[in-house]
Amino acid sequence: MEFDHMGVATTDAKALAALFGDLFDVTVAHEEEFERMHVVFLELGDGYFELLEPDPESDDAIAEFIDRHGPGIHHVALRTDDVEGALDHARDVGVELVDEEPRPGAWGHEVAFLHPKSTGGVLVEFVQH
Amino acid sequence: MEFDHMGVATTDAKALAALFGDLFDVTVAHEEEFERMHVVFLELGDGYFELLEPDPESDDAIAEFIDRHGPGIHHVALRTDDVEGALDHARDVGVELVDEEPRPGAWGHEVAFLHPKSTGGVLVEFVQH
Repeated sequence: MEFDHMGVATTDAKALAALFGDLFDVTVAHEEEFERMHVVFLELGDGYFELLEPDPESDDAIAEFIDRHGPGIHHVALRTDDVEGALDHARDVGVELVDEEPRPGAWGHEVAFLHPKSTGGVLVEFVQH
Repeated sequence: MEFDHMGVATTDAKALAALFGDLFDVTVAHEEEFERMHVVFLELGDGYFELLEPDPESDDAIAEFIDRHGPGIHHVALRTDDVEGALDHARDVGVELVDEEPRPGAWGHEVAFLHPKSTGGVLVEFVQH
């Protein structure tokens, strides 16, 4: 697999995109409202930063993460051309899954998350473009 | 800049390398003892996972991170061919630095960290191979 993106929980995606753009010479590749989040993808070579800003009224996983830990790195996404096969393999290896089946993610991708308690505390997303 | 690696704090780099190798089809690119840590780089496309296992007796930043947060994603490293210039630019932008000057990192790289409180809670490392 390859690196696809680093998911970052933030309270201000627009400001963070501007700062990262300046600091790291990265540009906005895509931006959308998705499941009550403002999502900004910044191009980072062949991959991306994915900035995730939850609606302040939301109690979703990203909002909860920010409440608990503050803003910061939330997950790493690995690119595959077969997210269902990757999930099946993870199940066979004995890894606990957050998503038993691929589901629609931002930017029209198919995504599925593994449970971090099975992967050394690292929250991993499989993503298929 | 481009993605270089995702730094992961772990209590067992060997076991996590074996699990990630199986789950994500990634192989060990480099392994060394560095500043009382066992460090394993796993190839991830053009980038890497960097698994960081501190000496259990150590009280360094990675050991402290594990004590506070448990194992998991610790930082993201961005590749540059001019880490000193990147640091100077970050300073000009007003970002607080952890390292005022580049210093030797694992695998013979030159590295420098930015302070996460200036970068949305994301601990960013500049790395020059």
